[in-house]
Amino acid sequence: MVGENRTLEQRIRAIEDRLEIYNLIAGHPPSADTGADYYAEAVYTEDGVFDRGSDLSGATGNKAIAASLKSPGHQAAIAGGLAHFTGLPHIALDGDKAIVTSYLQILAPYKSGEPIEVPNHGSSRGYHIHRVVTNRWELARTDTGWKIKRRTIRPVDGSEPSREILRGALKAYEKSV
Amino acid sequence: MVGENRTLEQRIRAIEDRLEIYNLIAGHPPSADTGADYYAEAVYTEDGVFDRGSDLSGATGNKAIAASLKSPGHQAAIAGGLAHFTGLPHIALDGDKAIVTSYLQILAPYKSGEPIEVPNHGSSRGYHIHRVVTNRWELARTDTGWKIKRRTIRPVDGSEPSREILRGALKAYEKSV
Amino acid sequence: MVGENRTLEQRIRAIEDRLEIYNLIAGHPPSADTGADYYAEAVYTEDGVFDRGSDLSGATGNKAIAASLKSPGHQAAIAGGLAHFTGLPHIALDGDKAIVTSYLQILAPYKSGEPIEVPNHGSSRGYHIHRVVTNRWELARTDTGWKIKRRTIRPVDGSEPSREILRGALKAYEKSV
Repeated sequence: MVGENRTLEQRIRAIEDRLEIYNLIAGHPPSADTGADYYAEAVYTEDGVFDRGSDLSGATGNKAIAASLKSPGHQAAIAGGLAHFTGLPHIALDGDKAIVTSYLQILAPYKSGEPIEVPNHGSSRGYHIHRVVTNRWELARTDTGWKIKRRTIRPVDGSEPSREILRGALKAYEKSV
Repeated sequence: MVGENRTLEQRIRAIEDRLEIYNLIAGHPPSADTGADYYAEAVYTEDGVFDRGSDLSGATGNKAIAASLKSPGHQAAIAGGLAHFTGLPHIALDGDKAIVTSYLQILAPYKSGEPIEVPNHGSSRGYHIHRVVTNRWELARTDTGWKIKRRTIRPVDGSEPSREILRGALKAYEKSV
Repeated sequence: MVGENRTLEQRIRAIEDRLEIYNLIAGHPPSADTGADYYAEAVYTEDGVFDRGSDLSGATGNKAIAASLKSPGHQAAIAGGLAHFTGLPHIALDGDKAIVTSYLQILAPYKSGEPIEVPNHGSSRGYHIHRVVTNRWELARTDTGWKIKRRTIRPVDGSEPSREILRGALKAYEKSV
């Protein structure tokens, strides 16, 4: 992993790339949960693709992806208490490109049911995990930072497409056996 | 993002800062779920503030924040199986200061209900997500490492205060459109 | 934390170690949820131990740990929509060794119950959090990258063993008070 024949500058650059990419992924839930179209417009490439699978509507182009955050449906979800929750992503950096593999939970408050009390933490009906999806982010370095060329999400439901995304994070290990 | 006119030392220092901050955030759930007052006392500044909003009691000063982890209420929550679960935080580093934006789930085991069996993973009543909160951590570098000057949490419930915290992570992008 | 008397090479190496370790932890959920025995075989040492506590069967040796991912039980869990979800891990790096402390959720789709609709996010029965466990990863640097010597997991259920794992992340602070 640690290329000993890289220059110091290359090594530091790769580290900074990794940290910038963590922030790019960490910025996604705040943008989705506030409907921040300006964020989506800035971080997707002009021809960027958001592929949500066959069951939900995706979008193509940074402006269209941004616009979808302002749709009545998405705004209603935000008003209901939408929360995107991302785990630790796996980053495979390859020069000016990177593949990020991550899990995401989409949470919403229960609208009915009995509240539960937890000492020192109030009373709450709690949240349900509405969706768990795997994400494949295909990133490219540009003059204005790392950008998303394609984001693909698939629900974890026992079917193959989600596992296909996950295997993308393990590619380097396939060869090592 | 990558300031090309910074010295090597400045760049490496900024990277080390980022990694130290990740650990600071990652140390919070273990401290909350074990009632480790010594951790809270060490990582908050003397005049640090923990603002939990109007519905739950916060505290001011590292000693008071630490003491709250020893309160009977908090100890009862721990005895019941409390789990704080943090997602990937967004870090905006600015010299000797940093703003971290993160999501946090507060989980507790169900005390009633039917157990569910998952093959190779035992039988369990499972956990409920009691609270989902957004966090804004205002950090400062000190002679003894990065410390918390103010931590603000707000529940994700469709209301504005949580979104205000989240938008803090997107500030750099507001300007770029 | 930042040893000022370390060489530049040592500092950069430590940073690269940290990032490699993040990826090692981030690779675990994809391997568990696809049954990628080749990943487990590659990242555990030959005598590596996976200790799941007294209630679930662990394994010793990278080959045995890998094989358990191919067991009928684990394969059935995957077919049912298993999702491992990891929070931000805490990394305590000490030269050629590291202790990582992390939380993990084990999720599965509800097989019964009423679907809930979230605007713009479809209809779903949702997921239950089957288990929440704390993890202690004892890592060592090898000629072929960072490897797992021992992984210990304990359920968060209010009992002591899980808190013992969590306190491992706070060791440096115990001394500072």
